[in-house]
Amino acid sequence: MFPPITNVLAERYASEGMKSIWSPVGRVVLEREFWIAVMKAQRDLGLPVPEGVIETYERVKDVVDLESIARREAVTRHDVKARIEEFCALAGCEHIHKGMTSRDLTENVEQLQIHRSLTFLRVKAVACLSRLAERAVEARDIPLAARTHNVVAQPTTAGRRWAMFGEELLLGIGRLDAHINSYAARGLKGAVGTRLDQMTLFKGNDALAAELDVRTLAHIGIPQGLEATGQVYPRSLDFDTMAALVSLVSAPSSFATTFRLMVGHELAGEGFLPGQVGSSAMPHKMNSRNCERLNGFLVILRGYLGMAADLAGNQWNEGDVSCSVVRRVMLPDAFFATDGALETFLTILNQMELNTAVIAHETRHYLPFLLTTTLLMEAVKAGAGREEAHEIIKHHAIATVRELRSGAISQNNLLDRLADDPRLCLSRERVGEIAKDAASLTGAAGLQVDAFARHATAWARRFPEAASVRPGRML
Amino acid sequence: MFPPITNVLAERYASEGMKSIWSPVGRVVLEREFWIAVMKAQRDLGLPVPEGVIETYERVKDVVDLESIARREAVTRHDVKARIEEFCALAGCEHIHKGMTSRDLTENVEQLQIHRSLTFLRVKAVACLSRLAERAVEARDIPLAARTHNVVAQPTTAGRRWAMFGEELLLGIGRLDAHINSYAARGLKGAVGTRLDQMTLFKGNDALAAELDVRTLAHIGIPQGLEATGQVYPRSLDFDTMAALVSLVSAPSSFATTFRLMVGHELAGEGFLPGQVGSSAMPHKMNSRNCERLNGFLVILRGYLGMAADLAGNQWNEGDVSCSVVRRVMLPDAFFATDGALETFLTILNQMELNTAVIAHETRHYLPFLLTTTLLMEAVKAGAGREEAHEIIKHHAIATVRELRSGAISQNNLLDRLADDPRLCLSRERVGEIAKDAASLTGAAGLQVDAFARHATAWARRFPEAASVRPGRML
Amino acid sequence: MFPPITNVLAERYASEGMKSIWSPVGRVVLEREFWIAVMKAQRDLGLPVPEGVIETYERVKDVVDLESIARREAVTRHDVKARIEEFCALAGCEHIHKGMTSRDLTENVEQLQIHRSLTFLRVKAVACLSRLAERAVEARDIPLAARTHNVVAQPTTAGRRWAMFGEELLLGIGRLDAHINSYAARGLKGAVGTRLDQMTLFKGNDALAAELDVRTLAHIGIPQGLEATGQVYPRSLDFDTMAALVSLVSAPSSFATTFRLMVGHELAGEGFLPGQVGSSAMPHKMNSRNCERLNGFLVILRGYLGMAADLAGNQWNEGDVSCSVVRRVMLPDAFFATDGALETFLTILNQMELNTAVIAHETRHYLPFLLTTTLLMEAVKAGAGREEAHEIIKHHAIATVRELRSGAISQNNLLDRLADDPRLCLSRERVGEIAKDAASLTGAAGLQVDAFARHATAWARRFPEAASVRPGRML
Amino acid sequence: MFPPITNVLAERYASEGMKSIWSPVGRVVLEREFWIAVMKAQRDLGLPVPEGVIETYERVKDVVDLESIARREAVTRHDVKARIEEFCALAGCEHIHKGMTSRDLTENVEQLQIHRSLTFLRVKAVACLSRLAERAVEARDIPLAARTHNVVAQPTTAGRRWAMFGEELLLGIGRLDAHINSYAARGLKGAVGTRLDQMTLFKGNDALAAELDVRTLAHIGIPQGLEATGQVYPRSLDFDTMAALVSLVSAPSSFATTFRLMVGHELAGEGFLPGQVGSSAMPHKMNSRNCERLNGFLVILRGYLGMAADLAGNQWNEGDVSCSVVRRVMLPDAFFATDGALETFLTILNQMELNTAVIAHETRHYLPFLLTTTLLMEAVKAGAGREEAHEIIKHHAIATVRELRSGAISQNNLLDRLADDPRLCLSRERVGEIAKDAASLTGAAGLQVDAFARHATAWARRFPEAASVRPGRML
Repeated sequence: MFPPITNVLAERYASEGMKSIWSPVGRVVLEREFWIAVMKAQRDLGLPVPEGVIETYERVKDVVDLESIARREAVTRHDVKARIEEFCALAGCEHIHKGMTSRDLTENVEQLQIHRSLTFLRVKAVACLSRLAERAVEARDIPLAARTHNVVAQPTTAGRRWAMFGEELLLGIGRLDAHINSYAARGLKGAVGTRLDQMTLFKGNDALAAELDVRTLAHIGIPQGLEATGQVYPRSLDFDTMAALVSLVSAPSSFATTFRLMVGHELAGEGFLPGQVGSSAMPHKMNSRNCERLNGFLVILRGYLGMAADLAGNQWNEGDVSCSVVRRVMLPDAFFATDGALETFLTILNQMELNTAVIAHETRHYLPFLLTTTLLMEAVKAGAGREEAHEIIKHHAIATVRELRSGAISQNNLLDRLADDPRLCLSRERVGEIAKDAASLTGAAGLQVDAFARHATAWARRFPEAASVRPGRML
Repeated sequence: MFPPITNVLAERYASEGMKSIWSPVGRVVLEREFWIAVMKAQRDLGLPVPEGVIETYERVKDVVDLESIARREAVTRHDVKARIEEFCALAGCEHIHKGMTSRDLTENVEQLQIHRSLTFLRVKAVACLSRLAERAVEARDIPLAARTHNVVAQPTTAGRRWAMFGEELLLGIGRLDAHINSYAARGLKGAVGTRLDQMTLFKGNDALAAELDVRTLAHIGIPQGLEATGQVYPRSLDFDTMAALVSLVSAPSSFATTFRLMVGHELAGEGFLPGQVGSSAMPHKMNSRNCERLNGFLVILRGYLGMAADLAGNQWNEGDVSCSVVRRVMLPDAFFATDGALETFLTILNQMELNTAVIAHETRHYLPFLLTTTLLMEAVKAGAGREEAHEIIKHHAIATVRELRSGAISQNNLLDRLADDPRLCLSRERVGEIAKDAASLTGAAGLQVDAFARHATAWARRFPEAASVRPGRML
Repeated sequence: MFPPITNVLAERYASEGMKSIWSPVGRVVLEREFWIAVMKAQRDLGLPVPEGVIETYERVKDVVDLESIARREAVTRHDVKARIEEFCALAGCEHIHKGMTSRDLTENVEQLQIHRSLTFLRVKAVACLSRLAERAVEARDIPLAARTHNVVAQPTTAGRRWAMFGEELLLGIGRLDAHINSYAARGLKGAVGTRLDQMTLFKGNDALAAELDVRTLAHIGIPQGLEATGQVYPRSLDFDTMAALVSLVSAPSSFATTFRLMVGHELAGEGFLPGQVGSSAMPHKMNSRNCERLNGFLVILRGYLGMAADLAGNQWNEGDVSCSVVRRVMLPDAFFATDGALETFLTILNQMELNTAVIAHETRHYLPFLLTTTLLMEAVKAGAGREEAHEIIKHHAIATVRELRSGAISQNNLLDRLADDPRLCLSRERVGEIAKDAASLTGAAGLQVDAFARHATAWARRFPEAASVRPGRML
Repeated sequence: MFPPITNVLAERYASEGMKSIWSPVGRVVLEREFWIAVMKAQRDLGLPVPEGVIETYERVKDVVDLESIARREAVTRHDVKARIEEFCALAGCEHIHKGMTSRDLTENVEQLQIHRSLTFLRVKAVACLSRLAERAVEARDIPLAARTHNVVAQPTTAGRRWAMFGEELLLGIGRLDAHINSYAARGLKGAVGTRLDQMTLFKGNDALAAELDVRTLAHIGIPQGLEATGQVYPRSLDFDTMAALVSLVSAPSSFATTFRLMVGHELAGEGFLPGQVGSSAMPHKMNSRNCERLNGFLVILRGYLGMAADLAGNQWNEGDVSCSVVRRVMLPDAFFATDGALETFLTILNQMELNTAVIAHETRHYLPFLLTTTLLMEAVKAGAGREEAHEIIKHHAIATVRELRSGAISQNNLLDRLADDPRLCLSRERVGEIAKDAASLTGAAGLQVDAFARHATAWARRFPEAASVRPGRML
């Protein structure tokens, strides 16, 4: 009646690269390649495979007709059987899937998809990291009023703020990398994991069955294998995958949250594409839609994390399929969402603009409050009593903040007040000098940016392909 | 490159009815109908709408070309603008969306979709309830060993077990019903909720603007309106919707969990469709795939619940779009999952079989343990000392359970042991009589089934259309 | 070794009223009162209870020695048995708990605690609602720049913003109220729910057993009873409870989020208690700690919601105790957190301050952008061509925003630019008049505040005790 | 009024070792030790610290009066200030906390607590692993009917089933270990992370400030430091911690779930402590309370995971305290729950019993179904046509399963039927031989157990202290 309902995360937000991993058509091809790889390994290990059979399958492996498969499934009510029948019908013979159960196929192919997705995202995350490091270095020395509790606290620099989120991204990438490196595949283990079906093929020879298992893992490109799984690999491994994605997107999401706050103060903006303009009615309104979207992606990922957490620790015996429908949804969708999040992050990093004049204005406005500690020390040096000087400064500071908020004054005149109060023994010139030196108040910010940039460079060297990653066009 | 990736929850599990509510094509039509309804109300309230314009729009409202809209969005980067342009281009004039902002359109149309989905599910849930009540009544008097801690505890009846889950379903349906009845729509409120844009249309006349709002709600079929929303309606309302879905699916999921346990003991089975047979290799293996799937749907729903909970309580000012991508995914997918869960539940209820012989065997096997309290009272009546009798019975019971588990005996012979122990003063005849009367040990089970069935009937009367609901064919 | 670790939610944030409901000592007393109530009902229904026994128990019911009970539990490893023994030892006889299983006691007493907590929170929530309505009315007509995407969008009023969150609070209270009204208790149903144990007491007379059940519910003050539960009541009922709490705290949390944003712009502040001052070093730094805390409480509640969602739909047979440790933690802690959240909200509402001068300054600053639509209409009336006027206004608006952000200008001079452009045919006087009339741009804001206040008053009338609720002193 | 409400996770389930890390009194001591360590490092780096001051603080560091601190906090409304004042009042001087902000103290001390808890749990988890490996080796060759979909599928061995969960535990421990090894501390970074406060102390010398940071990390025992944090360390690090705990408890929870299923079939039991007996009324009822509790702990952990996920990715600027109340609850409680889960797991592993006779009976009962594939091959060898033989076997198998379920037969007589059917050409002797050889049907189960045991041994060697871990006494 209606055309099929499409997957909104895939079609609206994910990149071609990620979609190709999870495409239903691609999945069928991956399975067929898996069957062929198993057949080859079986042949190499001495099982009889008639001449020409492998070639026959290879010739038709890319001929995918999802509707034909669906018709077969409507009869058999067994998705794997339907796909076996289809492939065999195309090839005109029945030699695949020997000594295998459905899960020998599906678990491994899904792990292959997961593993590929993880490595795909690692490169894209490194691309984000590099771009963020560039941005941090560019803004390394732009003073910015750091905020805690959303209230101005101490000076930092704009680049240092980016480095802060950059360091969190380093943690996320490190976590993802560790997960990839320890990721282990189920392999060919038969109906309940004992490798009985494979051993039966090899007349009880477990050495051959074990070797078949090893060669299968080599095909899917996952170095480590599990040894004692049941019908399925432990679902806490899926949980680890989802947790790695949440970790990875945390830094971009924190960045986006803070960026939205900055946009509210007009300190920064997402920028416009060439030709794009704001709403004609309200031209000042350049909304940070991409940052909002990025925060949304993390909310989505937390939901999939919850699904994965629910599957973990809930295994009945050697396994069942109560996880099946969940994984059909959660796995691709979580990868699409993460991919969309990184695409969005890259776009933001490419287009964003700092309004340096507004930043400077804000810093100037709040600066006097940030200087009070230094001025106190100077007053004492100049001969004022410590306790008295403290009280005087506090009195003027509170009066200033109240008058600013009440509208009695519009400029922060605390420095004038202090210079004018003879009890503090501070000349207007001295106060001016101290205020000029305010740049030094950013502490080790610059060095911390440099340190972050070095880490980013190390990752970029490890994954040079990240340099050519470009975000797709955002809707 | 690849064909679009489809939404697996929609295409694999949801019914046509639910898909039609959330179909992208259908959504476009719903929006167009909304615009037309607003135009009509505006005209009726005195705003000038040129002759024939409404008819022009109505003629083309079902002409939906998603690709054309997508091309427009790629230019404007604004989904609503793209859809306005498309509709106006089809109609050849520009009269829709007057005095409206994007959210005046999207919030209301989404609430319409949500409200329709909720009422659609209410009928399907009542269908499940009716079927479950039938099943409970059928099995009202079949004794079954109730279990606590997964260990046999006291007798109940099979129908009483169904009634237990039925009562939970009553709670879920009641909760859903209450949510529908209190569900309130945002209405036409303008960019920040003050109805400014609508009042401007009516030259500052708020009475007319308010009346327009009321008439709009009438169009979308939601009786209550919100009064003081911002750009968006409060997202805790979406949370309430998700929570109602989780509540609703809880009873089916508890039923499914217990059913899977029963299948493990061969007490019941999901049954086969005509013509369907078990695996040829292992014909005893009739897996409870549908029950497993049903449990999976609840896991999925919990994930969407988590997303909704994350959006609630996080409103920035009058609203933003950080919820947008989340709701695009969560809303349709949660409804598809719930619909799939109820479809699955109906299928199970239709096909399931009780293995009454196995049930009877299990009950018989455990019965002696369940009679010990009664036998103790009888022994005391017959002259045995209470404390001594208690010790004797306990001794025999523990010995019996140990011998059964060690394989020393294969039949529960506790009753014989007790009859044989002269200290208890119980004849074999008396013991036999007591055992025969065991049916009375099901307490008020039958009456409780009857009470549940009465409640189910009341709901069926309220929603007679539930009687004709049939599940689609399961994959 | 160490003193016991205390419950931080209870001891740091919850009120005495809530703590008294969940105190371990109080719980023991509640159980004893329950046993006594059951005994009385049993006696009234004809079961023999020796003269004076009930009075004996009543005399010692408040003598609670938790350590003595703990010692008993360390022996029996059964918490309920330990408490039975303790009570009987105190009374010197053994007459309680007849015909009851552990869950007959614990389920009902826990439901009593839940029900009392819910009604306790309803009153406190109404107190918050009243205070929020007062605040909304106070600020009914203070113009405020409403924001969407965290960027200024259209005028509203400060009171209207409070009413927006107030309306969400109305939804939350309505939801809580509906939950209380439909809340049903398990009652006395025996080991597997069939009322067998109670019927045995009454020699098979189910009418008497059912009446006992009814009278028990009357004691715990919950009007509705469940009919067909298993050993436990359906855990989706706990989920509904947790969901009601999340709904309830959503509005306060959205309010707090927005308030933190406002504090960042110095539009508002949490205020200080008499005598309290800001940090002497940074007197401008008045952190919105309470609002941050309030957001934290919702995060906590979402966690408990997740626990409850995990228990729902996972019932094995007639029940088990895999939910036990979860409920021991989740139930009291969720109520403590909700109570703390409302305490915090009340405190904020009592102490908060609007910086009206800053608000007015912000509104003035952005006002010209908000007037562009009106000015366009005026220019057309005055003879300008529509398309040309639109282009001119847009040009000036974009130039203004760019110069403001670049620091080229410090005041928004868009109105001057428009008045100075002869092509628009707008005199400086006309522009000035339009700007003066800007107050009318708040649309129906004031009326919407009034409507909200009326709803709040209705709730306050229903729960007059809310008027005397005062928050405890915040740490 | 009431005694303080205690933390149920700590007081009821956690071990002394874990409680000591999170005890409020212990926390105060940890903070004092931290202050002293910072003072020493400052002195060593050249800052003047008067003679004797450090010793004075050291003398009173263990004098902890929580009530006195609470009284101070009620005045200052600042928890850290209250603890500074108390410590200084005890020491009689004011030299601690120089150049530090509150978060310099609390972040680091909390990370110390987290890090200690993680390493504490690693040892306990290795103890569980060792015990599980022993159990697996003990049961290495006990044939067991493996189940998929909760239905018997193929033979495995009991030890192999334990190894399956053991392998998942290996994953969890590996994940925890990796987290510990990469865990990085915030260090001394000042109010917004730029190290300004520390540099000011050292007159702008960042090298000294950086060195102070390094020495501080050495004190808390965490090798890696973060470089560019804000006021707080990134909250995704807490998320990683929570995720590691969920991963760790997944395997024990899956084990417990399956064990509860096995208890339902009487294949295994949790065992009793010496002297403990079952309920006198129902002596067969040995409930798997500990396994149920273990499942409950994972539900709890998922809830805390949700809280952590909510904090991650939500950083406002350089940080705020909206996470404060959440972390006060989540961090200790998640560690208590994990500790309780491992305590429970160890107890189960120590006490559990396999009912080998029941296991053998079940295996025998289902064996004929498991042999059908082998018998088919034999029939073909003996001369039967493949297709016909397949049909015949299937026919008999289905008939057998139906008669067993209908009660028509009570013993699985499939082998007899096949031997009796002359069309299969299988003698009764041949069938008997094949059935006898059924042990070989466990595939590589034994070898897989051995492989798991080797991995367990490697961990036990790395953490020899695990050998002496004993669970506390369970309530």
